[in-house]
Amino acid sequence: MPRNVAQKLIAAHLVEGSLDPGAEIGLRVDQTLTQDATGTMVMLELEAMGLDRVRTELSVQYVDHNLLQTDEKNPDDHLFLQSAAERFGLWFSKAGNGVSHPVHQAHFGRPGALLIGSDSHTCAAGALGMLAIGVGGLEVAMAMAGQPLYVTLPEIWGVELTGTLPDWVSAKDVVLEMLRRHGVSGGVGRIIEYHGPGLAQLDAMDRHVIANMGAELGATATVFPADDAAQDYLTAVGRGEEFERWEADEGASYDLAEHIELSALEPLIARPSSPGNVVPVAEVAGEDVSQVVIGSSANPGLRDFAVVAEILDGRQASPHVSVDINPTSREVLSDLITGGWLGALVGSGARIHQSGCMGCIGMGQAPASGRNSLRTMPRNFPGRSGTEEDAVWLCSPETAAASALTGRITDPRTLEDSHDLPCPRPTLPERYAQIGDMLIPPLPEAEAQEVELVKGPNISSLPDFPPVEDRLELPVLLVMGDDVSTDEILPAGSQVLPLRSNIPRIADFAFTRVDPEYPDRARAAEGGHVVVAGRNYGQGSSREHAVIAPRHLGLQAVIAVSFARIHWQNLANFGIVPLELEDPSDLAAISVGDEVRLDGVHAALRDGRTLSASIGGREVALRHRLSARQVDMVLAGGRIPLTAQEV
Amino acid sequence: MPRNVAQKLIAAHLVEGSLDPGAEIGLRVDQTLTQDATGTMVMLELEAMGLDRVRTELSVQYVDHNLLQTDEKNPDDHLFLQSAAERFGLWFSKAGNGVSHPVHQAHFGRPGALLIGSDSHTCAAGALGMLAIGVGGLEVAMAMAGQPLYVTLPEIWGVELTGTLPDWVSAKDVVLEMLRRHGVSGGVGRIIEYHGPGLAQLDAMDRHVIANMGAELGATATVFPADDAAQDYLTAVGRGEEFERWEADEGASYDLAEHIELSALEPLIARPSSPGNVVPVAEVAGEDVSQVVIGSSANPGLRDFAVVAEILDGRQASPHVSVDINPTSREVLSDLITGGWLGALVGSGARIHQSGCMGCIGMGQAPASGRNSLRTMPRNFPGRSGTEEDAVWLCSPETAAASALTGRITDPRTLEDSHDLPCPRPTLPERYAQIGDMLIPPLPEAEAQEVELVKGPNISSLPDFPPVEDRLELPVLLVMGDDVSTDEILPAGSQVLPLRSNIPRIADFAFTRVDPEYPDRARAAEGGHVVVAGRNYGQGSSREHAVIAPRHLGLQAVIAVSFARIHWQNLANFGIVPLELEDPSDLAAISVGDEVRLDGVHAALRDGRTLSASIGGREVALRHRLSARQVDMVLAGGRIPLTAQEV
Repeated sequence: MPRNVAQKLIAAHLVEGSLDPGAEIGLRVDQTLTQDATGTMVMLELEAMGLDRVRTELSVQYVDHNLLQTDEKNPDDHLFLQSAAERFGLWFSKAGNGVSHPVHQAHFGRPGALLIGSDSHTCAAGALGMLAIGVGGLEVAMAMAGQPLYVTLPEIWGVELTGTLPDWVSAKDVVLEMLRRHGVSGGVGRIIEYHGPGLAQLDAMDRHVIANMGAELGATATVFPADDAAQDYLTAVGRGEEFERWEADEGASYDLAEHIELSALEPLIARPSSPGNVVPVAEVAGEDVSQVVIGSSANPGLRDFAVVAEILDGRQASPHVSVDINPTSREVLSDLITGGWLGALVGSGARIHQSGCMGCIGMGQAPASGRNSLRTMPRNFPGRSGTEEDAVWLCSPETAAASALTGRITDPRTLEDSHDLPCPRPTLPERYAQIGDMLIPPLPEAEAQEVELVKGPNISSLPDFPPVEDRLELPVLLVMGDDVSTDEILPAGSQVLPLRSNIPRIADFAFTRVDPEYPDRARAAEGGHVVVAGRNYGQGSSREHAVIAPRHLGLQAVIAVSFARIHWQNLANFGIVPLELEDPSDLAAISVGDEVRLDGVHAALRDGRTLSASIGGREVALRHRLSARQVDMVLAGGRIPLTAQEV
Repeated sequence: MPRNVAQKLIAAHLVEGSLDPGAEIGLRVDQTLTQDATGTMVMLELEAMGLDRVRTELSVQYVDHNLLQTDEKNPDDHLFLQSAAERFGLWFSKAGNGVSHPVHQAHFGRPGALLIGSDSHTCAAGALGMLAIGVGGLEVAMAMAGQPLYVTLPEIWGVELTGTLPDWVSAKDVVLEMLRRHGVSGGVGRIIEYHGPGLAQLDAMDRHVIANMGAELGATATVFPADDAAQDYLTAVGRGEEFERWEADEGASYDLAEHIELSALEPLIARPSSPGNVVPVAEVAGEDVSQVVIGSSANPGLRDFAVVAEILDGRQASPHVSVDINPTSREVLSDLITGGWLGALVGSGARIHQSGCMGCIGMGQAPASGRNSLRTMPRNFPGRSGTEEDAVWLCSPETAAASALTGRITDPRTLEDSHDLPCPRPTLPERYAQIGDMLIPPLPEAEAQEVELVKGPNISSLPDFPPVEDRLELPVLLVMGDDVSTDEILPAGSQVLPLRSNIPRIADFAFTRVDPEYPDRARAAEGGHVVVAGRNYGQGSSREHAVIAPRHLGLQAVIAVSFARIHWQNLANFGIVPLELEDPSDLAAISVGDEVRLDGVHAALRDGRTLSASIGGREVALRHRLSARQVDMVLAGGRIPLTAQEV
């Protein structure tokens, strides 16, 4: 049967399960990437597992998120990550080398490979005919330890591109059109595969833009074929010999189909405060602009900066606009210098920032309150910029540059008349700059074993995760209602984020939005405790800290009416028993201070789905949904101690 | 009588007093500069005075300090400052244009002019034969309102330079030698004037380095003659026609004399954590280095970056060193691009940051805890970098680059052998880059009057400063001991600094290190209050917030055994009556809650030096040291309301 590219990539990595949509499958992982905001926890997990050396084809630790150094925490994390990369056999990309996704594609992208990364935009590498998936930190740690990635087989969504892009319309507008049509959950449970004759004019970096923002559609991955464009790209980055053709078979079909006629597109923009609020730029033209930010993983190519430079060249940005440039990487910066584009940007009044993610993750360039900020970035969730009352818009480099020039939201097509400007078509170099010593290769094994992890005062090893006892007698410390979110379990924000390498300290924030006394009461209940909740417990973020922090304070089981999917997995991963009330009405009878007694927990979890507990002296029927593999994991204290036994 | 340059500059600006050392003189101010960290308060002061338009030859508002934007406060301040510059007729330098001092020198420096600035390194402009003095914000505001600068006439300290600098030794080493010999208070009460044949080889930017760090010697100002070097510089920045020769007369003498033989100098370095801890680099060579930072007002010249680039060109910085480059300005960045130096820096692994002060004032690039950071900056006070346990060293660009290369503190002279590197002598362009539209000129007066100040939610106007009543009946809210510092009165730090444009909010931190309840108690005592202290009250910083914040909470008088000089001036400037106990032993009898009664305050202050008060029912003899001018000011409620009456 003819196969599409996504099916071929999955088949080539399948180690468990079969290709039936909806089934759980295990995939062999070739490459991993971690960045600094998630990587510190991953490295602490590797340490806790006792892993000696990563078992992937290659794993790379990037430093691109937390580059602002206002105190010692971020630079201490950078040193820790470098020492961990040395210790465990990873490549290391120092602060200032650039954003992980485009750097990874340039140096390590390989058609046919499976990449996972603890960053949601890992999917960008799909531009090169790779299967690239963003996942949680522990999934990456497990892959480094040699385990497969377990996912539910997604549907494959074929998007056919026809026609050619008009002047002033570029790749960003293609993915904004997808978001305009389908919104931010249009891709959930799907792999998007682009195909059709329109592909021919999209080079690998254009495809990177489109694949990157597949994350905003909620897609598991985005896949492009590895065709001539991939070959040209690999040649331009000096690795032409690594090219391998991955294309759909003649007659391949897709589970779902979509079509975009490129010639019908116009410049688009996502209004505040969702990537799904897409409208034509022409519809909102004229609104005041106070900031324009160029850069991030969503428009990382040399072209995306060169276009802006050619629009601004010899002109001045509006005096009331701050134009902020985040060069993608040292290599892109180097090409911008050589091509004369950086000089043009500086001359036009732009602020040149260090290479990295910066404003895209609220690490710098926060906009003024309530003022419009136009960005070539992928996300504009409320407050993500760092400014609580922000107004961030997402658009193409062309639209951003036009608006920087005029001080108002401007359809770039109007520049032809207003500024006598033809559509810029920058001439890119045949070979991109390559700074050979930029990435530090893994240490040889013997040397690596001598390396000590460098831990600043804010970095503390993962706490122990003891196994689950067979008989539990634990007090109930919290009784909560429905839809408790991970933000209530463990908040984000500038007060909490810098503590991400320090579970004992971050634990001081656990459940404090529910009960400010919880951390103290949990520490006082030395033998451990239980929390109880209603439906959909743990909705929201995938953050692992929301289970590790209360686990550290002694949380041993959560009894709820039902659980949100990812948080339920995280509980199991970290050895907290997730139990459901058979009869939801029992919830009303449970009070803070009640004692929960469970006998014969091991056998009950292993042998069936139901358990009988005594809660506050009443008999209460409970059930669990753990697989046999997960029961072993939970009873061992979680996936890390289980793996430590096996490693 | 033959005069030196400093005497000529003073004489040319003298509007009150005479040239007797130790006397108070009034000087006409030609130019002012403010930066964003101090400028917001200055602009609020202008607003409070009701000033219509600045009365100086020119005043410039720079944005170079608070460039990191992690929330809306800094960008909101930038917008406020831009609107205030428009409203009051200042030039405006946007975020990203660069560090005030070198930008000011390039665009506005004029031999013979008197410049004051609300930044301690304003003295750098002495490089060009200017009298340039760093002062408090209100002094700058008063100068903008047309008032003279009052200072005590300093001694003139002549430093003769002879000989020529050896290879690998540069201007920074000259001023480090001054600090090695005289420490951080060696220049207090003095103007340093460099002269002698050794001057010939120091160009204007070398002199800028030396003049800048006169601040670290505690000097009132540093003066160089306006000679051929000044003329060459003005020609190179396109303003050769503004050159005017200012040289010492034949036979001019100095109040004190010093001599430096340049050929005897070697590379020097200031150890942590004072600019006065200077030792030869050779003495500390070999210590591990984790960070090297190039830039700041202390080494801002194109040459200072080009030297580093030529040392690193074609090489890689040590993999364990973060090399951080703070380009001085958009113009220096532009020249670094054109000259090929920026490309060399990027290629060697450096992180290129936006133009501004950044790490020098702890706004970014904080080092890892306890790790050595080598910087070409002027200051290394403990914790100033942002990292509490920091280890910051100050050195020349040559020493910094050599150490970046090796990963250890390295005497740059050793590079000739170890790296076969001759001493770099970069060829600078004949004309520096000039980006004409970089600075925004003052609005025409009619337009300016239409401008509304743009105040984000964190910016609040100065509170009212009511005049002093003739009869005071006020409770004592605090009784303190000796040596109370401004840090105890109003702390600095990352929690408090962002509130610098918001007196009502910053007031919540007043005296909280002495008594956490003080702000609440002060607000409750609605009619005002008094605080009482021992000797040397208000030692430490010059920060005006330490009087404005308690003043806002109702502080009307401070009764102390004695006062620190600057804080005493600040109290008077802001209308708080500073009174001394005639008999220090009375302090012991005063308690919190006592009522202070003073009758006929106006006549008592105007007519004599002593007052009689009733404190807690006891008669207590008090005295004051205010001049007649200051009495008028205090009684009016401070210098701002007094000026508002006059404006």
